[in-house]
Amino acid sequence: MENLISFEKAIEIVLKETKICGVEKVDILKSLGRFIAEDIFSPFDMPPFKRSAMDGYAIKFDDLSNTKIFEIKDEIKAGEEKIVEYEKGKCVLIMTGAKIPEGFDTVIKFEDTEEFVEEGKRKIKILKEIKKGENIAEKGEDFKKGDLLIKKGTFIDSGYMAIIAYCGIKKVLVYKKPEVGIIATGDEVKKIGEKLREGEIYDCNSYSIYGLVLKYGGIPEILGIAKDNKRSLKRYIEKGLEKDILILSGGVSEGKYDFVVDVFKEIGIEMKFWKVAVKPGKPTFFGKKGKTLIFGLPGYPVSTYINFENLVRPAILKMQGKKNFDRFKVVGILASDVENKGDRDEFLRIIVKVENDENIVIPFKKQKSGVFTSIVNTNGLLYLKKGQKIKKGEKVIVSVMRSDLVSIFT
Amino acid sequence: MENLISFEKAIEIVLKETKICGVEKVDILKSLGRFIAEDIFSPFDMPPFKRSAMDGYAIKFDDLSNTKIFEIKDEIKAGEEKIVEYEKGKCVLIMTGAKIPEGFDTVIKFEDTEEFVEEGKRKIKILKEIKKGENIAEKGEDFKKGDLLIKKGTFIDSGYMAIIAYCGIKKVLVYKKPEVGIIATGDEVKKIGEKLREGEIYDCNSYSIYGLVLKYGGIPEILGIAKDNKRSLKRYIEKGLEKDILILSGGVSEGKYDFVVDVFKEIGIEMKFWKVAVKPGKPTFFGKKGKTLIFGLPGYPVSTYINFENLVRPAILKMQGKKNFDRFKVVGILASDVENKGDRDEFLRIIVKVENDENIVIPFKKQKSGVFTSIVNTNGLLYLKKGQKIKKGEKVIVSVMRSDLVSIFT
Repeated sequence: MENLISFEKAIEIVLKETKICGVEKVDILKSLGRFIAEDIFSPFDMPPFKRSAMDGYAIKFDDLSNTKIFEIKDEIKAGEEKIVEYEKGKCVLIMTGAKIPEGFDTVIKFEDTEEFVEEGKRKIKILKEIKKGENIAEKGEDFKKGDLLIKKGTFIDSGYMAIIAYCGIKKVLVYKKPEVGIIATGDEVKKIGEKLREGEIYDCNSYSIYGLVLKYGGIPEILGIAKDNKRSLKRYIEKGLEKDILILSGGVSEGKYDFVVDVFKEIGIEMKFWKVAVKPGKPTFFGKKGKTLIFGLPGYPVSTYINFENLVRPAILKMQGKKNFDRFKVVGILASDVENKGDRDEFLRIIVKVENDENIVIPFKKQKSGVFTSIVNTNGLLYLKKGQKIKKGEKVIVSVMRSDLVSIFT
Repeated sequence: MENLISFEKAIEIVLKETKICGVEKVDILKSLGRFIAEDIFSPFDMPPFKRSAMDGYAIKFDDLSNTKIFEIKDEIKAGEEKIVEYEKGKCVLIMTGAKIPEGFDTVIKFEDTEEFVEEGKRKIKILKEIKKGENIAEKGEDFKKGDLLIKKGTFIDSGYMAIIAYCGIKKVLVYKKPEVGIIATGDEVKKIGEKLREGEIYDCNSYSIYGLVLKYGGIPEILGIAKDNKRSLKRYIEKGLEKDILILSGGVSEGKYDFVVDVFKEIGIEMKFWKVAVKPGKPTFFGKKGKTLIFGLPGYPVSTYINFENLVRPAILKMQGKKNFDRFKVVGILASDVENKGDRDEFLRIIVKVENDENIVIPFKKQKSGVFTSIVNTNGLLYLKKGQKIKKGEKVIVSVMRSDLVSIFT
């Protein structure tokens, strides 16, 4: 009867058709938020030398068996190239990050000593027990020359950018960002700023798609709202075919199928699938023309949002060299019974949070595709197979979609 | 002996000194990633009318007791303003999103019917059981006119931006972004591109700070690397005092304290605290001059990073109207014993992930402040009080810092 494909199959087809975008060299600061297109190996040991981890005095540990008093022989600042020869019972005032001179093996912090002058000589008294090697950072203890520090395909966040800087790398090879065209469709859908007449609503899908494209590294462009007629739809789609990805929302519902697919055929878009056995978002279309992937997402804001996260996100990430599309997952205790009585697998919007030393998973009450507040008031998804039933109190694994809910939000 | 303040006290002081930046109106697309400075109430019910949730046929449910065959009386597309009068035993072909005409109360999906022509009339036969009210979205079921949809201070992500669009709002009041100046310090610290001599390292702190400032909504500017002398330090700090926040890395270690604090005094920076009883990052300075908050973070990349997350992040967020600074938390099972033998509270870098249906928390092996790979290879923090000891297998609550580790990363 219906020609639905499974959700897993849909992802498989999307990924099969997705090709990696090109690469480009960018300045290190511009590499932030990009996916790296080269392996980064360390050019040197880090630390590059045995250095002091504290401001204090470098001593030879064995001297402690004879004395707690050391004469300050010299001072070494960080970055200074200075040769100081070891002499029994003498110490060197040394700053954090400075190279430990030959013969010294332990650093005692300023605050664990008392400085005084005796016979015109600056001396220290050691006030605390220390261990051999204390406050010394060994050469290469962070990473060693030749270590693979960043794997090709890694997302460069502030931490990775700092590592690139640490290695002294000025230009970074990254994957190009896919360009994504966004089209809303529907005679009832109006642009913000226009006056609504009875039966009309504002376009919100273009905005959620815009935000999601940016989040996952693409370059979004809102192309406009196509009317439910061939001429209008054709005009907008043709505008979008120069992009790497073209996303229509509200495009290919049951009743619009014939005319939309006619338009696709006329334009030369090859259909890969239409309709996925998943809720929300069954009437999802996927096709291709040349390099351009075309997604026809359902019109409901919830379906559009979830299907973008599930099907478009992997494509955008793969175009940027990413290989693993898993989300951050949490095991939690289900706070109320859930059951998938439908004929398709389902993604329930849930809240996952810590309460009384447990991770609890609270299914959002309104799960209908028409209820967009189910997106902003939740932070995760629970995948329920067709017919699956889970009791309150049982363990479930959920995917976290908005881990900032309790931090950035409110 | 030492004049350390507690970590909680440090945060309290920072927040007390932090003032909210101004507000500005921006176009909706520019509101993405900003913090909203107004409450958003719904201007109308959503859906604004009783509408069809599917492409199908609207019927009156009670008619089903007489017949499974309905004559198609008319068609209604979404966005159409059309009055169709109810007649017993007749149905209306209706598209998703279209207004349900008076007298009809249930929609049967296309795929659950069979259309045929009888005596020149288009008719349908209903093939499936349906419930009264099925496939109807009630007026206001998502939100009602006057509902508080977005609270002042909320971070606008793609979901919230879609809600703003849904309400037809074109201009959004948001908090201004704080401007943040970044200064590295140290004679041993070199700019990328320069040649390293023995004992020197590249500046990486400016880059991690740059990325973190951007992540939390600020506008970063790298001002350069100050030398360890008064003149150089003064020159850089004065450059940065027009910013809302000025961050120095490697500035105020034990051995540099006197000269740095002298410079601060000369410039007129009021010291609020120096040294926090926390690991990593004890020698953290906080002061203020006029509107500008000055943070002196430790020189070690790990200490800089963690102290930024712990002390600077709340300030940047508060400047943008945020009230709650909690992170996303997860309860997990500790994978190995931990013990804080030090004299300060400690933040351990950990990996939290799902394994065998449990959230496990793996403390990173190298916890020294000199090991920056402990930042990029972990995704969370475990806060250990001074003297606290937790056994393998016990439950701990961790803060998630990089929930993208298993999704965006690699």
